[in-house]
Amino acid sequence: MSERASIAPIVRFSRGESSTDQDLVAAESPLEVWLDQLGTGRRESIGLVMRTPGDDRDLVTGLLISEQIVTAPDDLVDVVFVWPDADAPAGTAARPQQARVTLAAHVDLDAVQATRALDRTSACGMCGRLALQSVEVSGGRAPDTPRLDPDVITRIPDRLRDAQAVFSETGGLHAAALCDLTGAPWLVREDVGRHNAVDKVIGAAFAAGRLPARDQVLAVSGRIAYEIVQKAAVAGVAAIVAVGAPTSLAVEAARAVGLTLAGFTRGDRFNVYTGAGRVRRAGE
Amino acid sequence: MSERASIAPIVRFSRGESSTDQDLVAAESPLEVWLDQLGTGRRESIGLVMRTPGDDRDLVTGLLISEQIVTAPDDLVDVVFVWPDADAPAGTAARPQQARVTLAAHVDLDAVQATRALDRTSACGMCGRLALQSVEVSGGRAPDTPRLDPDVITRIPDRLRDAQAVFSETGGLHAAALCDLTGAPWLVREDVGRHNAVDKVIGAAFAAGRLPARDQVLAVSGRIAYEIVQKAAVAGVAAIVAVGAPTSLAVEAARAVGLTLAGFTRGDRFNVYTGAGRVRRAGE
Repeated sequence: MSERASIAPIVRFSRGESSTDQDLVAAESPLEVWLDQLGTGRRESIGLVMRTPGDDRDLVTGLLISEQIVTAPDDLVDVVFVWPDADAPAGTAARPQQARVTLAAHVDLDAVQATRALDRTSACGMCGRLALQSVEVSGGRAPDTPRLDPDVITRIPDRLRDAQAVFSETGGLHAAALCDLTGAPWLVREDVGRHNAVDKVIGAAFAAGRLPARDQVLAVSGRIAYEIVQKAAVAGVAAIVAVGAPTSLAVEAARAVGLTLAGFTRGDRFNVYTGAGRVRRAGE
Repeated sequence: MSERASIAPIVRFSRGESSTDQDLVAAESPLEVWLDQLGTGRRESIGLVMRTPGDDRDLVTGLLISEQIVTAPDDLVDVVFVWPDADAPAGTAARPQQARVTLAAHVDLDAVQATRALDRTSACGMCGRLALQSVEVSGGRAPDTPRLDPDVITRIPDRLRDAQAVFSETGGLHAAALCDLTGAPWLVREDVGRHNAVDKVIGAAFAAGRLPARDQVLAVSGRIAYEIVQKAAVAGVAAIVAVGAPTSLAVEAARAVGLTLAGFTRGDRFNVYTGAGRVRRAGE
């Protein structure tokens, strides 16, 4: 059993009968993220993330990239983790409770906070601001490149499920993956939170030197809300393929940034909500 | 069509063929929540909530209760909403972008912030702190009262689905409900965010003078993470019944506060993770 699941004693009820048993549940545990800045001595918490332990370094890095606190490799000096107890009893599932990020002296933390304040006070401008950021990242990609075959899109959900080690055990983990243009998921991460799974993928792609991920498809196991599109835009991917449905704001944001958004991918059917020019049609 | 869904133009791909069509998508829109305090003149934003419009007053009230900023009816003076444009063109879906909450002078906002800071710096104590709060709310209920019939639990998911007006249209909304001890959902709310759906239920119950909801069951359409248990504990319910699975921390928290947690409720089967003494067994 991985650190991503725990054993829980349960009482199983079935057709009126009950019996004691055990079940695997998806692990969830809080991680507090602190920022330290070289040179200035500034230290601040950016809050508590409830996550499934595992790939914590990818999670923290991806979160900093999604929040645009880190925009280039030399912004990030290092990330270390603090465990609750250095002498945890044998057999207990010790998990880091704190991440301490060291940022370079040149990172302008005041600008980061000003941007966040702007986000808060101009809610109606969210999609417009995201579009500007996205052009910076992806460099103004043509609306019909790269091209995607429908067969590639319809195969992605099965390939994502095959790549998931834990989902079938616990029924509780979301998956996100980066797929190449053949639909092969080469980078897969899981979490109880779908946003965390995407952040883990973005952090791992950053560590591999693969951002911006221009000719890549972000595959997600669930539904697509605004925040997933925001993260995908920052990562520079060409398309999102989801098993579930998007929200209205996810559709607006994807349109604003020129992303292809495919959802309700079931069997040999799917819907394209934005950027359909990137999907090859019959006869093309 | 309600304000909870929007029409989106789509390209539908099926077995290699494509056609343009329309689809309903779940509405998602940002709401910024500001607090104003009578007497002191303090004003602060508690952030941006991405939510499905509708029942916004319940959402804001429920969020303040879940965060324990509001703990009694006279803490809350009023909640007003600010629309983006008083002269929105006809036919546009105008939705409030800002909620302005007025709190009574006696609400100790510094204590609220100190508690939040404590939450952030003592992650490992989350379940213990929640247990203390819960005893205050529910007044130390016996671990085997009220009693629940297994049949009541197995019927809840169907009743919740029946009560959902939008889910079948968009495939994108979570539901939460308060059910009485016969399993009848008398208060149902929906949202793209499962946490928001629960906050809307809590806010509506508060407005109806029904908190703490001691002899009630909170039904949720999805999975159960820590935060859902935290909200349920603050509302004082006896049990949570979910269609999906709980996380490890949700199980720990439910055990700490003496809540019954039933999940994986499918057909005539379900699992009880904590508080099984409250569920009647065959022959009892």
